[in-house]
Amino acid sequence: MKFCPDCGAPTNRQVPDDDDRERDICSQCHTIHYHNPKVIVGCIPEHKGQILMCKRAIEPRYGLWTLPAGFMENGETTAEGAARETWEEAKAVAQQPILYRIFDVPHINQVYMFYRCGVEDGRYGVGPESLETELVSPSDIRWDELAFPVVRELLKEFLDDSRSGDFPVRHSVISFGRR
Amino acid sequence: MKFCPDCGAPTNRQVPDDDDRERDICSQCHTIHYHNPKVIVGCIPEHKGQILMCKRAIEPRYGLWTLPAGFMENGETTAEGAARETWEEAKAVAQQPILYRIFDVPHINQVYMFYRCGVEDGRYGVGPESLETELVSPSDIRWDELAFPVVRELLKEFLDDSRSGDFPVRHSVISFGRR
Repeated sequence: MKFCPDCGAPTNRQVPDDDDRERDICSQCHTIHYHNPKVIVGCIPEHKGQILMCKRAIEPRYGLWTLPAGFMENGETTAEGAARETWEEAKAVAQQPILYRIFDVPHINQVYMFYRCGVEDGRYGVGPESLETELVSPSDIRWDELAFPVVRELLKEFLDDSRSGDFPVRHSVISFGRR
Repeated sequence: MKFCPDCGAPTNRQVPDDDDRERDICSQCHTIHYHNPKVIVGCIPEHKGQILMCKRAIEPRYGLWTLPAGFMENGETTAEGAARETWEEAKAVAQQPILYRIFDVPHINQVYMFYRCGVEDGRYGVGPESLETELVSPSDIRWDELAFPVVRELLKEFLDDSRSGDFPVRHSVISFGRR
């Protein structure tokens, strides 16, 4: 941030009086502008033992496979956001989403929240951010063509939990070059 | 937002070409500025069956009782943020924080993530945003002096789960005037 979104004057990086870290403060109206982590919401859509996956039509990781997910929007719940992404990327209606997996990703200021859900009527399509989409059997998952390590971890856990039929809410931290 | 944080030129509310909702778009550099929900992180610090609570020294709900919580910061995990808030507001070191409770609060664009934790050495103090802090026995909780409905719900669930010794990760939506 270089300019105040409220008044357009230049901002400075300063530690406010009652704070202990630098913030963007407007040189003119003195508003303090905070920047906070963002939430990524997504689904593991499952239908008759198969998982709905998307081949990315956008960078990064163009052409690799992922699960429907994206930035949570204002005004929606995490479940609504996860269902919205499932519709946008795979044209599938997420059935009964249940919170399943949370990842902290502090080096990029993100928190991921994944839901498991059904696929209404088993119907799906291809959204503008996908090259193709597919209901994949566990044995057909392209483990060497996954877009992100988090997708691999998520799928492995989900398949393990599917075998036991017990899906506890799982939570862990993904950190690169940290601790 | 009225002005572009990148170049200082006025912004307009418009729907970008590949989007379906209005965003703040810079009239000059054409950067699209997104606004997303924020994460509130907090703790239920417990020591020998008592819960560490804080009497608010700030608005809103000045003088009412709450649990240590606040906005998650960039660069930290949700657990680190919850522990930081516990230190800032109650000068207590959160021991072994474990994710316990998630609330979606879509009408104010927030997601709450609460951890249960111990209180290192049972030591605590009073941070600048608290008038006083106290380790409270369940029977002494001031149910009619709680700052927020979410604190009531959280405490009730925690006390119920403490009796059974089973603490599943819980998740629900808090909505006012919605649906």
